[in-house]
Amino acid sequence: MPFTFANVEDRACLVHGDKFYDLNRISHDAIATDPVDALADIDALHEINTNLTNIDPDGSLAEVKLGPPAPRPRNSFGVGLNYKDHAEESKMDLPESPVVFSKFPSCIAGPFDDVHLRATRGDYEAELVVVIGRVARDVPTEDAWSFVAGLTVGQDISDRKLQLGARPPQFGLGKSRDTYGPTGPLLVSPDSFPDADDLHITCAINGEPRQDARTSALIFDVPFLVSYLSEVMTLLPGDLIFTGTPSGVGMPDKRFLVAGDVITTTVEGIGTMVNTCR
Amino acid sequence: MPFTFANVEDRACLVHGDKFYDLNRISHDAIATDPVDALADIDALHEINTNLTNIDPDGSLAEVKLGPPAPRPRNSFGVGLNYKDHAEESKMDLPESPVVFSKFPSCIAGPFDDVHLRATRGDYEAELVVVIGRVARDVPTEDAWSFVAGLTVGQDISDRKLQLGARPPQFGLGKSRDTYGPTGPLLVSPDSFPDADDLHITCAINGEPRQDARTSALIFDVPFLVSYLSEVMTLLPGDLIFTGTPSGVGMPDKRFLVAGDVITTTVEGIGTMVNTCR
Repeated sequence: MPFTFANVEDRACLVHGDKFYDLNRISHDAIATDPVDALADIDALHEINTNLTNIDPDGSLAEVKLGPPAPRPRNSFGVGLNYKDHAEESKMDLPESPVVFSKFPSCIAGPFDDVHLRATRGDYEAELVVVIGRVARDVPTEDAWSFVAGLTVGQDISDRKLQLGARPPQFGLGKSRDTYGPTGPLLVSPDSFPDADDLHITCAINGEPRQDARTSALIFDVPFLVSYLSEVMTLLPGDLIFTGTPSGVGMPDKRFLVAGDVITTTVEGIGTMVNTCR
Repeated sequence: MPFTFANVEDRACLVHGDKFYDLNRISHDAIATDPVDALADIDALHEINTNLTNIDPDGSLAEVKLGPPAPRPRNSFGVGLNYKDHAEESKMDLPESPVVFSKFPSCIAGPFDDVHLRATRGDYEAELVVVIGRVARDVPTEDAWSFVAGLTVGQDISDRKLQLGARPPQFGLGKSRDTYGPTGPLLVSPDSFPDADDLHITCAINGEPRQDARTSALIFDVPFLVSYLSEVMTLLPGDLIFTGTPSGVGMPDKRFLVAGDVITTTVEGIGTMVNTCR
């Protein structure tokens, strides 16, 4: 049965409507408190979710500040140039295989956390983020979705100067400044969507629409990315894959982020993140 | 006081001579069992080490198989082209700033673990590895050594086809296949060395010497790397920095690793890793 998962004050929780349920409590200690550890147990999450209606919730989402669904991933990947229109606006050739870099774990932040700009050329990139739920090694594309705990929303905030202007360019570092990886608000299991390969994704800056696309336009889709990466190395529960951003980022028109900017990022069926630049 | 640290069966231990001491036991639970968590407490490690001689050891190193000193790092960095002679043999320009990629945590292995070759163009790279011991943010070079828990030996095993032959090249992925990041055998605190910036490093394949250098030849030395990375993002205890390899790797003469090859890697004052290719 589909489930929705959240990180409430660093505790793994299930979500129904606006109520949350502490997984460690309702499982009588069978499921770990730590969100990444709990995501290693997705069969139990699917099962326990079927009985939630008889259980008292721990509180309402409106009362708490949500954290990143997988706050301490082991491996955290970003994928570059994964929408044709973004490759074109970046004046880059289409890649023959996924352009994979590290979104180093230090940058992972929550869905309503501030983005602390550390440089003048900060840019936004709305992305669908995959969270792994099973140990994955040499997974064929047709089985790949079963290794995904769920999908969440992400921002691949980028320091364009460090990413592209350094000699040599520092792709991973430019994507990994502290707070440059907001994720959330919820993690939604893949079976929750009518078509998990075709979700509407948008980004607005101070309410002005900037990005608007569907994830069906991904050059390398979620099953391909999971399969491809699992052939290179073992993927672990809680691992993150930032799948790439569509066109509309700030760089082509030099509309970089400044203090006070509010970034609103939405993926259909998951929710909306709101991050303010400082 | 200088200390030597080891991972014995996934437990943090101190080492004196050939004896090891379980840190959680001898600290009466004050120090964590998990090696990465224990490395967050380096002041306690330095202090407890002064009293070791009055305590019974848990066993002898000869009886156990050591694991990687920091088996589950949060951030794990590799640095490319950080010795002039290696940049020359690679026919690459000297970098103006450190070439940083991710040695994804899935690849981290122990000092005597087998290397499971997954491709035909596997290559060895002997390296000095830095293990962070304090939360480090905007650290000046002159303070950088105090943020280092210790130094260990590493192999930055590289899949040259994936690293350099893909379009685009997959630097991080090519360095991160499972078992391609052996580290160990011991972690030695920086104050243990007469000069931690000048250590002899060697690598032999099946007993034949291939690499022989001193870490004083690093283009970007340990204090610079710690300072540079800490300006980009917050470094955390247990984070790894593979500092780069000197000349003598297999690629220029196409002497790639094959099953049965034994890789012996030594850094002065730390010890020797022996990894067999499968």
